[in-house]
Amino acid sequence: MAQLIADRRDIDFVLFEQMKADELAKTDKFAEFNKKTIDLIVNEARNLAIKEILPTNADGDKGCVFENNKVTVPESFHRPYELLCEGEWVAMQEDPEVGGQGMPAMVAQAAGEYFVGANCAFMMYPGLSHGAGHLVEVFGTDKQKELYLKNMYTGKWGGTMLLTEPEAGSDVGALTTTAKPNGDGTYSISGTKIFISGGEHDLTENIIHPVLARIEGAPAGTAGISLFAVPKIWVNDDGSLGEDNDVVCDRIEEKMGIHGSCTCVLTLGGKGKCKGTLLGEENKGMRAMFQMMNEARLGVGLQGFSMASCAYMYALDYTRQRKQGKNLLEFANPDAQSVTIINHPDVRRMLMTMKAYIDGMRSFLYFVGNCFDKHKTAGNEEEAEKYMNLIEVLIPVIKAYCTDRAFDVCSLAVQSYGGYGYTKEYPVEQLLRDTKITCIYEGTNGIQAMDLLGRKLGMKGGKPFMELMGVMMQTVAEAKEAGLEDLAAKVEAAVNGAGEIAMLMGKTAMSEKVLTAFAHACPFQDVLGDTIMGWMHLWRATIATNKVEKAKSKDKPFYEGLIKTANFYINSFLPITEGKRNSIKAMESAAVDMTEDAFAGK
Amino acid sequence: MAQLIADRRDIDFVLFEQMKADELAKTDKFAEFNKKTIDLIVNEARNLAIKEILPTNADGDKGCVFENNKVTVPESFHRPYELLCEGEWVAMQEDPEVGGQGMPAMVAQAAGEYFVGANCAFMMYPGLSHGAGHLVEVFGTDKQKELYLKNMYTGKWGGTMLLTEPEAGSDVGALTTTAKPNGDGTYSISGTKIFISGGEHDLTENIIHPVLARIEGAPAGTAGISLFAVPKIWVNDDGSLGEDNDVVCDRIEEKMGIHGSCTCVLTLGGKGKCKGTLLGEENKGMRAMFQMMNEARLGVGLQGFSMASCAYMYALDYTRQRKQGKNLLEFANPDAQSVTIINHPDVRRMLMTMKAYIDGMRSFLYFVGNCFDKHKTAGNEEEAEKYMNLIEVLIPVIKAYCTDRAFDVCSLAVQSYGGYGYTKEYPVEQLLRDTKITCIYEGTNGIQAMDLLGRKLGMKGGKPFMELMGVMMQTVAEAKEAGLEDLAAKVEAAVNGAGEIAMLMGKTAMSEKVLTAFAHACPFQDVLGDTIMGWMHLWRATIATNKVEKAKSKDKPFYEGLIKTANFYINSFLPITEGKRNSIKAMESAAVDMTEDAFAGK
Repeated sequence: MAQLIADRRDIDFVLFEQMKADELAKTDKFAEFNKKTIDLIVNEARNLAIKEILPTNADGDKGCVFENNKVTVPESFHRPYELLCEGEWVAMQEDPEVGGQGMPAMVAQAAGEYFVGANCAFMMYPGLSHGAGHLVEVFGTDKQKELYLKNMYTGKWGGTMLLTEPEAGSDVGALTTTAKPNGDGTYSISGTKIFISGGEHDLTENIIHPVLARIEGAPAGTAGISLFAVPKIWVNDDGSLGEDNDVVCDRIEEKMGIHGSCTCVLTLGGKGKCKGTLLGEENKGMRAMFQMMNEARLGVGLQGFSMASCAYMYALDYTRQRKQGKNLLEFANPDAQSVTIINHPDVRRMLMTMKAYIDGMRSFLYFVGNCFDKHKTAGNEEEAEKYMNLIEVLIPVIKAYCTDRAFDVCSLAVQSYGGYGYTKEYPVEQLLRDTKITCIYEGTNGIQAMDLLGRKLGMKGGKPFMELMGVMMQTVAEAKEAGLEDLAAKVEAAVNGAGEIAMLMGKTAMSEKVLTAFAHACPFQDVLGDTIMGWMHLWRATIATNKVEKAKSKDKPFYEGLIKTANFYINSFLPITEGKRNSIKAMESAAVDMTEDAFAGK
Repeated sequence: MAQLIADRRDIDFVLFEQMKADELAKTDKFAEFNKKTIDLIVNEARNLAIKEILPTNADGDKGCVFENNKVTVPESFHRPYELLCEGEWVAMQEDPEVGGQGMPAMVAQAAGEYFVGANCAFMMYPGLSHGAGHLVEVFGTDKQKELYLKNMYTGKWGGTMLLTEPEAGSDVGALTTTAKPNGDGTYSISGTKIFISGGEHDLTENIIHPVLARIEGAPAGTAGISLFAVPKIWVNDDGSLGEDNDVVCDRIEEKMGIHGSCTCVLTLGGKGKCKGTLLGEENKGMRAMFQMMNEARLGVGLQGFSMASCAYMYALDYTRQRKQGKNLLEFANPDAQSVTIINHPDVRRMLMTMKAYIDGMRSFLYFVGNCFDKHKTAGNEEEAEKYMNLIEVLIPVIKAYCTDRAFDVCSLAVQSYGGYGYTKEYPVEQLLRDTKITCIYEGTNGIQAMDLLGRKLGMKGGKPFMELMGVMMQTVAEAKEAGLEDLAAKVEAAVNGAGEIAMLMGKTAMSEKVLTAFAHACPFQDVLGDTIMGWMHLWRATIATNKVEKAKSKDKPFYEGLIKTANFYINSFLPITEGKRNSIKAMESAAVDMTEDAFAGK
């Protein structure tokens, strides 16, 4: 079985031909990252992923072991974790002076696509070290940075994020964990946190837990939440490890998937000995969370996508090798031989559907990654704002749409294997199970839709949304110039249709029909995602059309494939998007009008 | 947590108000099955399912044990299996004289909905005893029936179906298992069969394996396949058990779900000692399979649906109890209390989507069950043919559409639980894993679509399909009479649209664009399923509208719920179906035109 994880040619296409990653090298910040360097980075990431990480995925599926309040990760995880740390892959995008590699986001995404596609559960550990480290970098005092940061960015120590409590999930504001000032700058922390990925494990000697808690006397709700840095083992002022800090893992969850990533219930201060230091300002914990949210949600979108991309590559490989049944055109010929199942039209439909989503999502993800890069390197505030606007409006869509479609793609991958796909002998059923969590955590996809409709759509008087429309229309214009009038007109109609629906949604959300509007928030998010896929395919086809004639022979089928995939998506899927728009236009209120009793008989 | 499995009020609605099950009692065959008797049967099935079967589902998920070629099922399965046998639930629909209960199919479906929803993996064992028994009943000699039948229909012995081989899955005709006449009426059987549910287990003292094999010298392909009855332990002429019959279980599959149902690799005749007797005529094995196929596929549709129905009931119960977040209308009120999550519009959308599919699928399944009943009790051949025509055209749709939507419903159920849904602490993730197999086995859903387009659509010059259109239009007319002109007009447009697409599909399948047509077979199947859902909701709403005003107070919300659900489905989902029709009309050929190379870069 080929172990490819991702389509390297397409990654290069998106990086260099679509997003022009090498142009970033013209900026001071990314001067080192010319095409050659980027190639080298992606090569190294791919090799590490294929040789060292991918082989641990099935082993990881057997799960972590919980015993005596300690968690043991799958044995096979230790070696690739060391290699990731050695290779400085934990904090790819952060500044070298604090332990990072200073890469553009897009390049980190290319590497991440390989790593996460190889073993998503495993990559949670370094991912969380990095994420928690980022909180320390942005909100920490010099002392906190001195004590924690480098150890986190280099993966020497782990990290987590302690938000959720049994009665405070989507509603973080309901949390009850308390922090009591000790008078020496530390706080005594007390509470129970659940669903803590990497909350306790044996990969690292220490773990730094960013913890959301309420300082005694703070206001109720989100306005009274502060963020604390709580080490598993106390870190003395000289950086040496001190006493156990009374953060106790009570159990780990048994889950549907990502078994290699332990999900912990943690009790803080059960013995009254848990201490932390304030990270950022008092009562500004939620604000800190929000600042990290965009990158975290982009990361979850990438997780779902990367697993789906891996599932597609497996399905493609399998359907190219598995022989079963005759070619449909020879159905009546008794002497016809069995053919590989990629020859069957319905298998084609499944593969093409997977490819259409994978290609479209890759472009979408790298586009947003590129917005981060361009935001960082913008020449002026106006330009910086434009990219941040695009990020703000696209983040909920990228998190929700990519994970929903990733689940669909993995399901199609299982289906294309037939009965074998349902067995653990093949890797796709695990990818299907693992992917589902990405639709749930880091804000369920329903929460994303509320963010899109309730915050992002009307943000700054609708400017970010209009800017998105403008960027899409620019591609439409370029496609027309390249001679793709027909495809361009269809995408144009989809973009205009999405704009029209956005107006309707915004208006309805501000009317007395607000509940009905929010009952359509997910369908609206879906329509926007579909439209973005159409945009991306049009963009891809435009580039491919401009290049295919003069392309090298090995590139010709690739470009032709991009054009065909664009035709497939735009002609076969955008009509369904139009149907979804019409569904929203009907603005049916039955779901919110139902009495609770009416959902089932008595 | 409420353990309801299914909405009993809705089952009664479909049985008595929509399908008029009690009218069957006017026929000789079903004279005993008046409303009171049916009530009693469904009550008993529900009690048994809730009290004895449902509690074994999570235990079953831990899986079967394979050791020394023997399979041990989960210990908890033994008691409910005995109770099922004692209660004569194994062969509900078969004649009492051969060990059955002679129930109408629809009533057996109501009971089955509870049993399968409670534990699908467990129900595979009695289900397979019944299915294999049915082959013996229909194709067996008097002697075979004397030796096997009653023991199978009473569940004393198990049954299986040995079709698949490593190189013969969807393409059964490629099988290589051989049968060599021994001259004494028996055949020596030799070969390896895979994916055999219940192929070896400790629930019963014997197992009868119907085996597809090729008699030496038989033609290649499906024309040379015969069916044999091969006992696990030889059955002597006097009915006593003889020697072990050399059917050896080599291993069981590790799967994504239905862990309680063992999936075996069986080697027949590895020691040269496996014997069987011909079941039916030489080389007519495939024909025998086809005769059983309709009921088997209806059964798989019911499996998917039943698990989804159970998932919906769980999700409804959970969202009614779980408090999280404020009511959206009080978002700005700092003193607002948390509400149960069923109050959130997006949760409403999920529940309503689940309910719309569950209600629609229940009506669809019972309608087809009722066609079987009416076919059996038809007064004349013409009437009998009409019902068989409906069965033929609807079977692929019911198998594929119901299982695809069941998977979607289970996924929504997980989503509506949030993070908890992903844990094994709650039952929905298991239902999601278990349900996926129903999209694959008994002919993948892609195979169903080929059956629909390639065989059923053009069957008898298109008469069965036209009859289906006619039946749906009758409901449209009745709805208009009941004052539901608006909803009726929308369903009418969907039915006409489906008819138009059917014409296009049929025409294209007979043109040089045959491959492109078959690449749209699944979308076509999906459109037909959507249309049927619309039909069923219109039918339901018509009945509810006629009754709601004079209904008892406890029934009012139920009927109002049906009307609202019909509005939801018809207004929110049928526009998307229109989009799917437009997608098919575009008849994009990119998927089949792609070169293999173009699916990924080099």
